[in-house]
Amino acid sequence: MPRVPPATAEIRRAVRAALDEALPAPDDAVPAPAVVVACSGGADSLALAAATAHVGAARGIVVHGVVVDHGLQAGSGERAGEACAALAGLGVDARVTGVTVTAGGDGPEAAARRARYAALREESRAWGGAPVLLGHTLDDQAETVLLGLGRGSGARSLAGMRAWSPPWCRPLLGIRRAVTRAACDEAGLEPWQDPHNDDPRYTRVRLRHEVLPLLEDVLAGGVAEALARTAAQLADDDGALSGQADEVLAAARDDEGRLDAAALADLPAAVRRRVLRAWLTAAGARGFGDAQLRGVDALVARWRGQGSPSLPGGLEVTRVRGKLAVRRAPRGPGA
Amino acid sequence: MPRVPPATAEIRRAVRAALDEALPAPDDAVPAPAVVVACSGGADSLALAAATAHVGAARGIVVHGVVVDHGLQAGSGERAGEACAALAGLGVDARVTGVTVTAGGDGPEAAARRARYAALREESRAWGGAPVLLGHTLDDQAETVLLGLGRGSGARSLAGMRAWSPPWCRPLLGIRRAVTRAACDEAGLEPWQDPHNDDPRYTRVRLRHEVLPLLEDVLAGGVAEALARTAAQLADDDGALSGQADEVLAAARDDEGRLDAAALADLPAAVRRRVLRAWLTAAGARGFGDAQLRGVDALVARWRGQGSPSLPGGLEVTRVRGKLAVRRAPRGPGA
Repeated sequence: MPRVPPATAEIRRAVRAALDEALPAPDDAVPAPAVVVACSGGADSLALAAATAHVGAARGIVVHGVVVDHGLQAGSGERAGEACAALAGLGVDARVTGVTVTAGGDGPEAAARRARYAALREESRAWGGAPVLLGHTLDDQAETVLLGLGRGSGARSLAGMRAWSPPWCRPLLGIRRAVTRAACDEAGLEPWQDPHNDDPRYTRVRLRHEVLPLLEDVLAGGVAEALARTAAQLADDDGALSGQADEVLAAARDDEGRLDAAALADLPAAVRRRVLRAWLTAAGARGFGDAQLRGVDALVARWRGQGSPSLPGGLEVTRVRGKLAVRRAPRGPGA
Repeated sequence: MPRVPPATAEIRRAVRAALDEALPAPDDAVPAPAVVVACSGGADSLALAAATAHVGAARGIVVHGVVVDHGLQAGSGERAGEACAALAGLGVDARVTGVTVTAGGDGPEAAARRARYAALREESRAWGGAPVLLGHTLDDQAETVLLGLGRGSGARSLAGMRAWSPPWCRPLLGIRRAVTRAACDEAGLEPWQDPHNDDPRYTRVRLRHEVLPLLEDVLAGGVAEALARTAAQLADDDGALSGQADEVLAAARDDEGRLDAAALADLPAAVRRRVLRAWLTAAGARGFGDAQLRGVDALVARWRGQGSPSLPGGLEVTRVRGKLAVRRAPRGPGA
């Protein structure tokens, strides 16, 4: 039996471990499990698809390939067809799905991402809620953490992407991007080079080509791995604290959706602010920032009869007889 | 009454808020409270000392100035004397304390820092446990977070410096470095420019002059503030989870220091790993990394009769009849 070359072996190991987590244990009574693998034709997702095809064949897992055509660049349909053909060459039954990217207020990258995830979610539904395997690597995770630094919302913005958040499954979060390229070489696959990956108009590209290399130099190496490790730990931290906050919220909210301030008084600040964030979001508040959340928090933690802090969208939070409530702010005298 | 110029006013506000937290409420029955303010003669600590002198005089707080002379650079004694004279000019009774910097394995910066903090702690004791005010700014905090990124140990390495961690009190963590320079200008104070602050052999200097400006450019501004906000939130998160871990540890450890695995089994990973870290540290383990902690964690979370994971210093962790114990690893057959 020929020895499996190293990059290919590393990626197969990662796919096996991810499928162990994402798929139920084999059971003769249910039909063969299925997974969807998303492929752009780039090195990351092509190496992922190749490994998934191999592991799927060995384990009796049906692998469905899907290529999303965003229709944003000239020739995108042709390239999607090529990726589809590459998947077929790996023995993966694949199809192209076209999406319409509708620009939102958050830029074209975010709009394309939304459309892509919606199409992939549909694909998962079409195959009975099958996990959707995505090719994000350790390098993508490191870039995501750096992007989050600019938002400054603590663990939530630094926790990065989850390895398994149904239906999304990211087997390669612990694998360097260079390994996916090496695996493509080993398999004789020719990945597509997206010119966007070198376009310095994209924030992520500048993080990749300018910020991360400088940080690696200044901090003497290991930064991408350290960022990925930090992301995983902060995701655990946030999960634990958010879980506690959900329990408190369920007990502290009354039938009218008001929140009992006394039930929050003795909580650590980290839990208390998560309770308030979840409560405000459930009450329809959107787009509030750290300073506004602190204003609401002060109604609980530093109550001295102060005014009602306002929130975006013409809302405000009142405290009446120990209960917090979100309401539409009355118009001022000049309005 | 002349209007207080803006930078001076901002720093005084910050000092008032910090002293509200660090000092007990005024009480006629106890003597006047005291604080120690550490001053290098640089803009940050000189502006802090000036504001503390002003607020202290208004509130009847005795302010003791202290200048640490590390004796590492030629002329350090002279400069310490100048800083002392500047403090005297502000009406602050000050003295120079010389320290001996003993090189450790972690570099000269860390050694100087250890010696400085030890001397300042002595100063605090000499004044009845008085808070020690330190001049760290928002910029220092942002640099500290970036330094922590390279360590990759999650919230602990990114939580930065605490605003109040007795006896250390850092009133300026929310204030930009430029404001301290402006406040010195406003007061006609001439801060000392430490040439080390521009020496690119220091990691912190490169973070300040290369990494942060690039991140500000790539992420479109607000990065230093975002890093400082993130540090504060992660410190809260870590505090909450570490507090829970301490409670679990107290209940799960027996008289021989062994740890009951069953008591940890249902905890979220973020709490469980903190229990294990605190337990290992209390048992004398030092210098273990993330991978080693995961090995110990697997004894609890994924127990299947595996071997005893080893730790630095010739230690290992065993699991026997549901109890974890740290012991000296037996020598291998070849040793």
